[in-house]
Amino acid sequence: MARSSNYQCYALSVEYGQRHRAELDAARRVAAQLRAHEHRIMRVDLAGIGGSALTDSKVAVPVTPQAGIPATYVPARNTLFLSLALGWAEVIGANDIFIGVNAVDYSGYPDCRPAFIKEFEKLAQIATKAGLEGARFKIHAPLIEMSKAEIIQAGLKLGVDFSATVSCYQADDEGGACSRCDSCRLRAAGFAAANTPDPTRYR
Amino acid sequence: MARSSNYQCYALSVEYGQRHRAELDAARRVAAQLRAHEHRIMRVDLAGIGGSALTDSKVAVPVTPQAGIPATYVPARNTLFLSLALGWAEVIGANDIFIGVNAVDYSGYPDCRPAFIKEFEKLAQIATKAGLEGARFKIHAPLIEMSKAEIIQAGLKLGVDFSATVSCYQADDEGGACSRCDSCRLRAAGFAAANTPDPTRYR
Repeated sequence: MARSSNYQCYALSVEYGQRHRAELDAARRVAAQLRAHEHRIMRVDLAGIGGSALTDSKVAVPVTPQAGIPATYVPARNTLFLSLALGWAEVIGANDIFIGVNAVDYSGYPDCRPAFIKEFEKLAQIATKAGLEGARFKIHAPLIEMSKAEIIQAGLKLGVDFSATVSCYQADDEGGACSRCDSCRLRAAGFAAANTPDPTRYR
Repeated sequence: MARSSNYQCYALSVEYGQRHRAELDAARRVAAQLRAHEHRIMRVDLAGIGGSALTDSKVAVPVTPQAGIPATYVPARNTLFLSLALGWAEVIGANDIFIGVNAVDYSGYPDCRPAFIKEFEKLAQIATKAGLEGARFKIHAPLIEMSKAEIIQAGLKLGVDFSATVSCYQADDEGGACSRCDSCRLRAAGFAAANTPDPTRYR
């Protein structure tokens, strides 16, 4: 979406101690396919903090729907991701930061909500030299209000190869999906609702 | 200060690609001396972003006073530090985060100002599961309005061993200070103004 709006894209992925590296491999593939200007993988050790099914091997990934905020919530994760993006943005002189959070299908995560994005945008303005000197930071979250089906349809229109992407919380090293976690179920339901063949490779 | 207010202290240092590790060694010593409950060093690779004299070996540390925000500014650094602290705080169930920023002697850094601290506190509330569920996060910055002399006097009163601390931006591996960077000059002036012998070891 950023590229179709003619932004030069500096893509950022974060290796934060997540259960698998398959999503980082997928990010690399997608960044190359969509010709990002640059793709960086930054490392932060959130596994050392623990407290989430995504970073703590002692906490299981839920495979049945949970009430409330799920065990896959990673404390302060998107705050940290956006901080890294903000630092890089300031260094390269960019004011526009895009993040793929989504609040509709899955509103359990506090840091996937519009209120969070708006608040971080205010912080970015105050936290940075560029902001003090007049740059206007904008945090874009173009997927935030879309359903999974709408995201899939928009992606197909823009030429996204969904067979190259990974959503599963516990994919295997080759990106094979478990089909049972929340993320797999929502993705599969999205393809069904979009009336589109699901190219996901299940293991 | 946190300990003297009877907080159980989980101390956090960040290895972010700064020029030297001496300040991390010093943090380890001080955490032990002051009996922190735990001391963690988390790693984030900001050197990969560059853009600062503190993380980019191609940018020199200024040794004469500079106009405006100095080259030692690290883009989004305190935002990132507080994000890490927030994540850890949420995992251990803490609501109080202390950070040693100081706005008076040195107001050049945007993320050392009270406005920044206040804004991050608002973000913490919105960004976290704990905040949504009613925890009230508080970001404490007890040094923020103090002069260096006042900080030194307060520290001495609390038994801080300043010979164990490092302020220099380019200390050597043993913590030997350069005496010429902004941080060294402000520290030395602080001891002079506090009428206290300066225990700093200059190389």
